[in-house]
Amino acid sequence: MPDVMSDAKSEKSEPRTVTAAVLLIGDEILSGRTKDANLGFIATFLGDIGIQVKEARVVSDKRDRIAEAVNTLRSAYDYVFTTGGIGPTHDDITADSIAHAFGVPIGPHPEAMEILTRHYAETGGEFTDARKRMARIPEGASLIPNSVSKAPGFQLENVFVMAGIPIIVQVMMDALSARLEGGAKMVSRTIDCFVGESAIAEGLGEIQTRYPNVGIGSYPFYRDKQFGTSLVLRSVDSSKLADAVTETIALAAKAGGKPVEQAQT
Amino acid sequence: MPDVMSDAKSEKSEPRTVTAAVLLIGDEILSGRTKDANLGFIATFLGDIGIQVKEARVVSDKRDRIAEAVNTLRSAYDYVFTTGGIGPTHDDITADSIAHAFGVPIGPHPEAMEILTRHYAETGGEFTDARKRMARIPEGASLIPNSVSKAPGFQLENVFVMAGIPIIVQVMMDALSARLEGGAKMVSRTIDCFVGESAIAEGLGEIQTRYPNVGIGSYPFYRDKQFGTSLVLRSVDSSKLADAVTETIALAAKAGGKPVEQAQT
Repeated sequence: MPDVMSDAKSEKSEPRTVTAAVLLIGDEILSGRTKDANLGFIATFLGDIGIQVKEARVVSDKRDRIAEAVNTLRSAYDYVFTTGGIGPTHDDITADSIAHAFGVPIGPHPEAMEILTRHYAETGGEFTDARKRMARIPEGASLIPNSVSKAPGFQLENVFVMAGIPIIVQVMMDALSARLEGGAKMVSRTIDCFVGESAIAEGLGEIQTRYPNVGIGSYPFYRDKQFGTSLVLRSVDSSKLADAVTETIALAAKAGGKPVEQAQT
Repeated sequence: MPDVMSDAKSEKSEPRTVTAAVLLIGDEILSGRTKDANLGFIATFLGDIGIQVKEARVVSDKRDRIAEAVNTLRSAYDYVFTTGGIGPTHDDITADSIAHAFGVPIGPHPEAMEILTRHYAETGGEFTDARKRMARIPEGASLIPNSVSKAPGFQLENVFVMAGIPIIVQVMMDALSARLEGGAKMVSRTIDCFVGESAIAEGLGEIQTRYPNVGIGSYPFYRDKQFGTSLVLRSVDSSKLADAVTETIALAAKAGGKPVEQAQT
């Protein structure tokens, strides 16, 4: 669990950095067949509440690969969010893999059974053995509601296990967000300019040295047949950030880059 | 390096499975600001030449995170492909991180210096110290040509280090592909049907049991306000694959799913 609770009593008044990892589970992403749409959503959602995604992994639908990744990530970061592999078919092995990772038994969860029994009674579908697989939840886990298609996700300690379908991930993140404790909120400002990054690299390095608490990223782009550079400045200190942004805009303008700050969202 | 060379002399006539991992480097992907466009391209490119991507990771622009991931992945898979962090700015630390991971020195590479000297002479740009950073290559590496913007990637043993811009990744993959040795070519066939996956889960599990050498994946989708299931069957044995596809189509039809096979590409 995040140390943020114990830190509340520490002497530091600054909020600590709360970190997360995202684990995308599914052969279809690794084969190139499906483009993941969840990492960006989860990262933005968490960023908005002061939780920084520090690592992401994509693993195949194999129990040992899933369990190994979950165990590594849950000890390294405050929170872990997984997507994929909790449906009714033979290749949906995420719940079993998480139980294996934690070394706990897995079985039908009374509340999940109730939700699905009611759902199939209402929709006239048969509650088959395959569908009952979706009520198998590792011991000790609490459910994550799914208002779209009912089959719940679950939380076990600091690991949140969700479906793979993007709209279900979105309602699950909404549903679980009250359980998360954010930290220092990272503010991000982006300046686009139309020079190659090497034209401003030296000046940018100097600004970075003078503002150690502002992270300055330089990302080349190719847009409308023109190369340019997005400069992303991030900090929990919005005053220092503003100073660094002013200097960066001046640098890019001097290099002929016609800098434009993107609207802050 | 892949064992595929030594395997050529072994008694087995079946080609072995050649594996790869993809390492995406960059804070901008983890912040949700940028959506990665490289994993899908690399996975499809490699799949076409018989190399299967088994894992992907996204790490931030931090030397130790990059080095740790590279060392884990290069020992676990035949090939590793990295994208991002080889430009001229202060946050471009991939080359240094790779040198650190391998424990080798890094310095200006004569051929890279020559390419960039010529490029800036031709384009009238100044070959600044920042731009010279792009010629710093770990000792023992060979270059990967970049026909788009000239600054090369590099290969060190089984690790291929590329830029982050998608069009540059694409020309680099083309340029390096002759160095790769593929294995068993995975053939993939996809059947879309318009029933929830639980309606076919049990029958699908039975087909999976009878065709152990065909991987059957079931991926729910939500498209045009309708839920459905994509069934992806993959195998190196196209005859067994055809039989499994026939049975799967029959199963989905029986469940009322109006199955349609997607065009094979």
